[in-house]
Amino acid sequence: MIKPRTLKGFRDFLPEQARKRQYVIDTLRKVFESYGFEPLETPALEYEEILMGKYGEEGDKLMYKFEDNGKRRVALRYDQTVPLARVIAQYGSTSSPQVLPMPFKRYQIQNVWRAENTQKGRCREFLQCDVDIAGSSSALSDAEVIEITISVVKKLGFKNFKVLINDRENLKFKTNGITLSQDRNILAVRIIDKLKKIGKDSVLKELETNGFSKNEAEEILKITENANLTPRLSEVFSLLKKLGADEVNYEFSPTLARGMDYYTGIILELDVDGYTAGSLGGGGRYDNLIGLFTDKKIPAVGFGFGFDRLMEAMEELKLFPANLATTKVLVTVFNSELLDKSIEICGILEKNNINQELYVDPNVKLEKQLKYADNKNIPYAIIIGPDEVSKNTVMVRDMKTRSQEAVLLQDLMQNLKLSSYL
Amino acid sequence: MIKPRTLKGFRDFLPEQARKRQYVIDTLRKVFESYGFEPLETPALEYEEILMGKYGEEGDKLMYKFEDNGKRRVALRYDQTVPLARVIAQYGSTSSPQVLPMPFKRYQIQNVWRAENTQKGRCREFLQCDVDIAGSSSALSDAEVIEITISVVKKLGFKNFKVLINDRENLKFKTNGITLSQDRNILAVRIIDKLKKIGKDSVLKELETNGFSKNEAEEILKITENANLTPRLSEVFSLLKKLGADEVNYEFSPTLARGMDYYTGIILELDVDGYTAGSLGGGGRYDNLIGLFTDKKIPAVGFGFGFDRLMEAMEELKLFPANLATTKVLVTVFNSELLDKSIEICGILEKNNINQELYVDPNVKLEKQLKYADNKNIPYAIIIGPDEVSKNTVMVRDMKTRSQEAVLLQDLMQNLKLSSYL
Repeated sequence: MIKPRTLKGFRDFLPEQARKRQYVIDTLRKVFESYGFEPLETPALEYEEILMGKYGEEGDKLMYKFEDNGKRRVALRYDQTVPLARVIAQYGSTSSPQVLPMPFKRYQIQNVWRAENTQKGRCREFLQCDVDIAGSSSALSDAEVIEITISVVKKLGFKNFKVLINDRENLKFKTNGITLSQDRNILAVRIIDKLKKIGKDSVLKELETNGFSKNEAEEILKITENANLTPRLSEVFSLLKKLGADEVNYEFSPTLARGMDYYTGIILELDVDGYTAGSLGGGGRYDNLIGLFTDKKIPAVGFGFGFDRLMEAMEELKLFPANLATTKVLVTVFNSELLDKSIEICGILEKNNINQELYVDPNVKLEKQLKYADNKNIPYAIIIGPDEVSKNTVMVRDMKTRSQEAVLLQDLMQNLKLSSYL
Repeated sequence: MIKPRTLKGFRDFLPEQARKRQYVIDTLRKVFESYGFEPLETPALEYEEILMGKYGEEGDKLMYKFEDNGKRRVALRYDQTVPLARVIAQYGSTSSPQVLPMPFKRYQIQNVWRAENTQKGRCREFLQCDVDIAGSSSALSDAEVIEITISVVKKLGFKNFKVLINDRENLKFKTNGITLSQDRNILAVRIIDKLKKIGKDSVLKELETNGFSKNEAEEILKITENANLTPRLSEVFSLLKKLGADEVNYEFSPTLARGMDYYTGIILELDVDGYTAGSLGGGGRYDNLIGLFTDKKIPAVGFGFGFDRLMEAMEELKLFPANLATTKVLVTVFNSELLDKSIEICGILEKNNINQELYVDPNVKLEKQLKYADNKNIPYAIIIGPDEVSKNTVMVRDMKTRSQEAVLLQDLMQNLKLSSYL
């Protein structure tokens, strides 16, 4: 017999987990839509040439790619930004049968696949939650992305968090008065990005290992640490104030670098107090990426939430509602003859808008039915045996305390409504 | 430059369409959960050996399968039933760290991939929406699946529809008093399944082409047409009545066959009046499939909605709410100096729980901002120029009628609330 198992880095989400995921997704969607962002779905498979070469050498290596039955080279979605660039090129022109509103404010919540090293605890299938504005270079769009990030995090219940903000302008380095070449600058930014993780000394050392002199390294670090608000950042901060964003939730962070090459303006990172595994998301302005498949330049700014980390942080900080299970009462079935009675109770509960579930098999022992309620975290069970029927009562069992009491049928609703669970 | 395009049979869902899909998915989820069904997610990629050989020759051929970077043979999800069988085997044992409640009532709404012939209008990536009860052989679980199907279809707004019901027992054929071999019986069922589509004469002819004599073919057709309620069907129908299912929404259909081999009891199909492209979903009892990866027999019954057909039928019968766009008002920005005024209006609308969107670029011409509202189907736009500011009014523009009127700021909420859009 074939052993039932999943591939390394791929996960099943059983009900309890799937429900929590859905709760976070629903919250994100609600906030995104309240700011006028619209949903977009793109296919899991794309032509390989659409994706290849867009994510650097590393990306090309980690991409799931293969030849399909029709001998086409295809690849699994690796992120949601390149597909967004494709969509904008494909439907953005006025001759397209479907017209995209521009600026295009879209959110996208879909899985991506990367053949990551699973020994570092990385997954190979994971959800990305991106919110982007393509087609505007205004400081207001920068500010809106920050505002929406703060809203999402607040809505999820986080209390102490900060969106760290910097401008890539602050990371255009000069050494000995001479501007670094683009490649050397990117290299320096990647190393500076580790500042928070590895500290100053290690950063200096790593700069030196990478061909910068001791003086150059020190100069780069000094430029980083002494940077001030750029004109753009001043504008964004003033807009955030106007928009009413809470000042405790965002902050200028001159040492924030973000490792990715493609950022061209503001850069963002979301830090939550009490969660140490890393930032819960990042983003910024990237004006040269979305025009990839067109001859136009399409400025863009956005933020991506790290869904798995978000889930982990919510778990650690106990931010999930106590019981996301929708069923509040399991109506057990004593036997086939008494099924009608159980159905009757379901009807009463339904009329009173209490989510109930009828146990689906009258031939299963009561004990097993109660265990089922336990496994599903259903807070109450109702039992109607011959005794109860003769006395016109039902037995209401509190699954948590394992206590039960006989309740007159006409008092049932009142009894249940007094409960703290419902 | 690389031409932006999608693979044949793969689709982008732009906002309007994505929103409609989400509306249907949300409705399904809500109904499923109200009956105590729980969400399950399984990975897009599985070990090839988990999926191969489970869907017949055709399935093996249409499956997307390849070798991953680690030289593993992997395949993309082809349906949601085999993964369910794997999940039950993997977490169903008491030694598993995560315990599944049994019977396991789960729903699953995920994409599947099949390299179908696109010339017949088939898609290669499509959403499946399945609801199943695994681990119970009771007639009550059969009835519940029918009840839930009716509830979903009603909730989506369909008026005239029927769940057709039959029992595979009725399709165990005898010719000349002798029971058909299993293979011959399956063959006969597959042909009988076409009765509604191609008619009696063609079915008789096809039976004959497939090695049944004229007499045998007629006998098979007669057995089909003259079948009665089996004991199981009688029980299910009596339970449906007890559960309060509306009798106009289900019906015994002796000629319903369902082509698939794996059904072992009741079979179901969903037909909607006025939609002729086929049934909107199907299902039934399949007691030999879910135990696939265990040494136990795990009875199961379920229903799968054809999501694309559901969408098409809803479009044709105009069942989608008029405007699923969440933004009700676009607040335009006259220029940078007047941005504060626009933000102020947003605040007023927000306080009154009216979903609004602030146009993200003060440097874009008003005309273009209004066109944006049009493209996004936003019913209202608000304009605040110097004139309006001096008179303490705002201009409220009805995007549908293209009429606009100046409204005193203090009357704004009343004016908007009178509108039929909000």
